[in-house]
Amino acid sequence: MNSGGGGPVALPGGHPGGLGIGLGSRIRKSPYFEALVAHGLTHLTVYNHMYMPGSFGDPDAEYEALVERVSLWDVACERQVEVVGPDAFRLVQYVSARDMAGCAVGRARYAPMCDHSGVLINDPIVMCLAEDRYWISIADSDVLLWCQAVAAERGLACRVFEPDVSPLAVQGPRADDVVADLLGEWVRDLPFFGFVEASLDGIPFVLCRSGWSGQGGFELFLTDGARGVDLWERVWAAGEPYGIHPGGPTLNERIESDLFSYRADCGALATPLEVGLARFLSLDRDDDFIGKAALLAERERGPARRLVKVLLSGARLTATSEHPWPAWVPGDSGDSGGESCGEVRVAVWSPRHGSNMGLALVSSQVAGGPFVTVTPEGEELSATHLAFFGE
Amino acid sequence: MNSGGGGPVALPGGHPGGLGIGLGSRIRKSPYFEALVAHGLTHLTVYNHMYMPGSFGDPDAEYEALVERVSLWDVACERQVEVVGPDAFRLVQYVSARDMAGCAVGRARYAPMCDHSGVLINDPIVMCLAEDRYWISIADSDVLLWCQAVAAERGLACRVFEPDVSPLAVQGPRADDVVADLLGEWVRDLPFFGFVEASLDGIPFVLCRSGWSGQGGFELFLTDGARGVDLWERVWAAGEPYGIHPGGPTLNERIESDLFSYRADCGALATPLEVGLARFLSLDRDDDFIGKAALLAERERGPARRLVKVLLSGARLTATSEHPWPAWVPGDSGDSGGESCGEVRVAVWSPRHGSNMGLALVSSQVAGGPFVTVTPEGEELSATHLAFFGE
Repeated sequence: MNSGGGGPVALPGGHPGGLGIGLGSRIRKSPYFEALVAHGLTHLTVYNHMYMPGSFGDPDAEYEALVERVSLWDVACERQVEVVGPDAFRLVQYVSARDMAGCAVGRARYAPMCDHSGVLINDPIVMCLAEDRYWISIADSDVLLWCQAVAAERGLACRVFEPDVSPLAVQGPRADDVVADLLGEWVRDLPFFGFVEASLDGIPFVLCRSGWSGQGGFELFLTDGARGVDLWERVWAAGEPYGIHPGGPTLNERIESDLFSYRADCGALATPLEVGLARFLSLDRDDDFIGKAALLAERERGPARRLVKVLLSGARLTATSEHPWPAWVPGDSGDSGGESCGEVRVAVWSPRHGSNMGLALVSSQVAGGPFVTVTPEGEELSATHLAFFGE
Repeated sequence: MNSGGGGPVALPGGHPGGLGIGLGSRIRKSPYFEALVAHGLTHLTVYNHMYMPGSFGDPDAEYEALVERVSLWDVACERQVEVVGPDAFRLVQYVSARDMAGCAVGRARYAPMCDHSGVLINDPIVMCLAEDRYWISIADSDVLLWCQAVAAERGLACRVFEPDVSPLAVQGPRADDVVADLLGEWVRDLPFFGFVEASLDGIPFVLCRSGWSGQGGFELFLTDGARGVDLWERVWAAGEPYGIHPGGPTLNERIESDLFSYRADCGALATPLEVGLARFLSLDRDDDFIGKAALLAERERGPARRLVKVLLSGARLTATSEHPWPAWVPGDSGDSGGESCGEVRVAVWSPRHGSNMGLALVSSQVAGGPFVTVTPEGEELSATHLAFFGE
């Protein structure tokens, strides 16, 4: 997931004050929406046809709270696709490029999903609620429709629908303390990607050790949309002694922590092998799954592009920097000629690296080397290879 | 389609100045984006994972230009699903609840699309480019993925992909004059939902007499994303003598003109029979199509809810009004008790009616009568039945 930027936008032409967002019924508010506004929400984006908090006005403070204390995020837009019935496992296994066999009840796996040609169409975590019941906790595409089509056309005996489930994330080094104060010391023993049913003052949720940051914490999968503000305020109150701050998925932290953002990092036409998700695929499993043949062939010939993490030169980028930017390998003459090699998908200041950094999707031939990019303001920046994403 | 409101938002708690939108790579800009900014864009929304113009700062002026002169809209977010190959017609016919047989090359049909349980999942126009080639011009859901799954799982011989096509709409009573000045008098003879290939200074597009208003006009389906600003500026220049204004899908005009907005008017769980699209379905055709059995059963028993157009009491609503709002039938005592009957999905001032109006999705039992609703500010409004939507 990706906050879609955050902060006012430095638009070409110097549009003052950034652009507003129009609200309407086409896009849903989350059960936490009123709490967001009460806590100073300034910027929104849209994710899975829902409003998602982009910023509360101070991206630096949001980053700091996340890596030093604890942060509270409305991630209700991480919708669930529920699959239930005798063939639930068959469907989940067939649509997942990762082997889901052996995933125990109460455990989740990160399982990229590809279309029949091996193109990545989502990168959910799949939660096994029972042997015949799963939640596919999705990134930003309507794989609900896609899973429904596959199930129906194959005649599988399962229901596929969106349940009333709205995750709220508590992330950061003090997240365990906050949730332990709320629910008890037992929560500290919950393993990564382990989950249990829980409740608080009658507010029902599934508590999972997960979340889209590298700082640790939990997601509370609220199962009663009428109780969103109640849950937010209970967690907020428990977090105040620990300096809790409202936030959302955080662009620089998630790149520092090697967390992939479907669409932001790749558009809608990349393969999981291109974007560094190979270790989450089970290409050698015996059973068939959607995209298997295409992915095996791609592994054989090697991916055409690679997603790389780079350091970028230049003065500190602001939260208002827009992307993507073009990328090219300079010509021998050193001038701005040279060959286009892809694009910088995201670029942002990294406190951890004390430098600008970026994620670039570039031709495999040049993915290990330096290249050049240019900001919307026309400044040419040099990009230094830091790592292949996910390696 | 729906602009998602537009204008600054009166949020609960009186958030000043409305909410900003964060820009980032996860959501695409259209080929016209720079032109929008140059022409004073103030508000955006998101549609099909693209930014879409919400307002240029004066909704009244935008309405007036549309109904009295001519308006220019970036509707690139109306993406195309291209289906090409020997089985292209078989796929298009199987996924459309409307019979596509007999649709000639160069003609389009509005063809609602349902899932296997008869729930509306999109309401595209389907354009026949050749006997083996179609564009499905979609509303806001990823039916690209859904169509790909259906084609692959049925083993149909066709490619299903998103081409480089970005519609630009010229709408309003002077739209014909503008487009005739650009391309020639012949455009006046193009029939409704008829289209032809055209070009302007080497900018290639498909010209179709269509658009999401009741004011007449064209959509120019640009087929080279690098030429967006060029095309915008050419049309703009031709429109200046006619008082052209930048705009976008216009909430009050489209309701006055009985144009349905998928999601805005119904959420994601309504049937085409509930929302007044029965006349666009071909339920009695001989061949099977997705959702047919469910829709036939629903027609037999009658839809549970109906979408109705209502007049709403109270002072003029502003463009900042948020919805949906709850709807209920007052109890016998006339107090605010009574029975919940659904919701007002959209509510807006109607210049044509000189009154507030709304679209409400309510229980069939009470859909012909009056009911009551309440604004976020707590004002109770009475709703008077005007028409069943689409009848």
